[in-house]
Amino acid sequence: MGSLDNPSVVALGGGHGLSASLSALRLMSGKLAAVVTVADDGGSSGRLRSELGVLPPGDLRMALAALCDDSDWGRTWRDVLQHRFISDGPLDQHAVGNLLIVALWEQLGDCVEGLDLVGKLLGARGRVLPMSSVPLSIEADLIVGGEVRTIVGQSAVGATDGRVERIRLIPADPPAHPDAVAAVMEADWIVLGPGSWFSSVMPHLLVPELAEALHTTGGRRCLTLNLASDTNETHGMTVVEHIRALYEHAPGLRIDAVLADPSAVDDPELLIAEVERMGARLIMRQVRRSDGTARHDPLRLAAAYRDVFDNFLGDVGTLST
Amino acid sequence: MGSLDNPSVVALGGGHGLSASLSALRLMSGKLAAVVTVADDGGSSGRLRSELGVLPPGDLRMALAALCDDSDWGRTWRDVLQHRFISDGPLDQHAVGNLLIVALWEQLGDCVEGLDLVGKLLGARGRVLPMSSVPLSIEADLIVGGEVRTIVGQSAVGATDGRVERIRLIPADPPAHPDAVAAVMEADWIVLGPGSWFSSVMPHLLVPELAEALHTTGGRRCLTLNLASDTNETHGMTVVEHIRALYEHAPGLRIDAVLADPSAVDDPELLIAEVERMGARLIMRQVRRSDGTARHDPLRLAAAYRDVFDNFLGDVGTLST
Repeated sequence: MGSLDNPSVVALGGGHGLSASLSALRLMSGKLAAVVTVADDGGSSGRLRSELGVLPPGDLRMALAALCDDSDWGRTWRDVLQHRFISDGPLDQHAVGNLLIVALWEQLGDCVEGLDLVGKLLGARGRVLPMSSVPLSIEADLIVGGEVRTIVGQSAVGATDGRVERIRLIPADPPAHPDAVAAVMEADWIVLGPGSWFSSVMPHLLVPELAEALHTTGGRRCLTLNLASDTNETHGMTVVEHIRALYEHAPGLRIDAVLADPSAVDDPELLIAEVERMGARLIMRQVRRSDGTARHDPLRLAAAYRDVFDNFLGDVGTLST
Repeated sequence: MGSLDNPSVVALGGGHGLSASLSALRLMSGKLAAVVTVADDGGSSGRLRSELGVLPPGDLRMALAALCDDSDWGRTWRDVLQHRFISDGPLDQHAVGNLLIVALWEQLGDCVEGLDLVGKLLGARGRVLPMSSVPLSIEADLIVGGEVRTIVGQSAVGATDGRVERIRLIPADPPAHPDAVAAVMEADWIVLGPGSWFSSVMPHLLVPELAEALHTTGGRRCLTLNLASDTNETHGMTVVEHIRALYEHAPGLRIDAVLADPSAVDDPELLIAEVERMGARLIMRQVRRSDGTARHDPLRLAAAYRDVFDNFLGDVGTLST
């Protein structure tokens, strides 16, 4: 547990969405951990997973890069870890950080120890943990032209033209990483989203021990909605439909706060009613950059999280003092 | 220039021989640099050179590993850099340090800056410099069954069954790396060998600007003979023939000291006469391990270098005070 001013926070997700939340949360001085999806099967991560039988390292690498120390040393090593080879040969598009993380796993024999060491190298402002210690696959039911179709693989789900209805994990009952469960149980706040709604935000809810921790933790839960709702995975879904899809994958999950950018809310009144029904509080803030892209501004997002966390300060709640 | 007690030393070579001299010299507190051959075309280095058009990083990586700080942090990162992937796929046998060094080169745009950064990561006790800033090839004339045959490529030379007579570099007139030239000019001692006699020790003598520096530096030159004289490259060559082969590749080079292990000297009287003719001093010490292998003991080799360097202390010479 953290202090009132600096709650300990766990951010759940993967990919660019998790990078956005970590880039904001790292600006606070409280204890920070990321719990990262391990279902990627595309690109450099997919090839490493297939060639070496390891966890896909890419989302873990991106989370570490987002947490790097803002010094010459930290930034230089971050850029090296993010560096991708370009060639006509077999190294093409491999990210150096992926190769380094996998080597640390093989050398040290423990995935969290390896990630902690890369964190030390970067002067990372928090820990990065895999949601499971085994590589996972995602299977999704899609609606294509009115028919239900099932596809397998996170990269296929992320690139689909259909609208995702439901996802499942393969294996269906994977072990959560114990450090990830402990982090969720000890946190003052758990942040879900932003990120690819089905392939990065939802998978955590389907790992049984992690879902159990999310239901039983004394920490509060903040759901951060996306800046763009019409993505490959979510064609035509409204903001409220995003929330309902989440509940369908985690019935009964208590959400304490919903953070949304006004520009991304299609029907504010519907959202207000939905959040009220959830028993949560809605915090609307501009967290988008001013450049017209659907990307988060780390400072605005950090200030918005401050508003969310402070909004609960006077409550009889779970924050320790 | 260093002090009398702690001369500044430059070690020339490549591969396991250079690792041996660096593992010893790092135990002294003086300034230390390695000038490393860049002609490797086999294994992980050869594949990287061919796929990405870079300097072969393997000998540079091994030199950095030999210089690593003797701490948990230094040893852990050394082991990670030395780690090789094992798979049925394209990453098989790639050393992680090779991939990291190449990524730093691509990211920073400067080969010595990248090597210095890996050195900082390892807490290395000295700098590692490439002898040339362009990848080189080695061409060798061999005697096979009484006939002269020419082969190309360091890995082919190292694996040959013939006896090497002479080597050449391709290109024949490569640019020396300016930092390597400066290191040789500023050193109190330059150490040549041990190492693969033709493919690791000789190449430096064939880079014109580096050869010029070796001839004109005010520093002294120590030639360290190998523990095994009957290698792939040197079938049937006596110790004296090793020395003569070196002179054939660098006529007129002044050698101040020759360091030899008594167990590796086939004919002591011939060696004494040869070293006298060279105008050098012969220092005979056990530098071999006690385990029967042809490998150096770092402590014995360090003590032997101390004996070599101290042997010249009283002289009117080039050592600064």
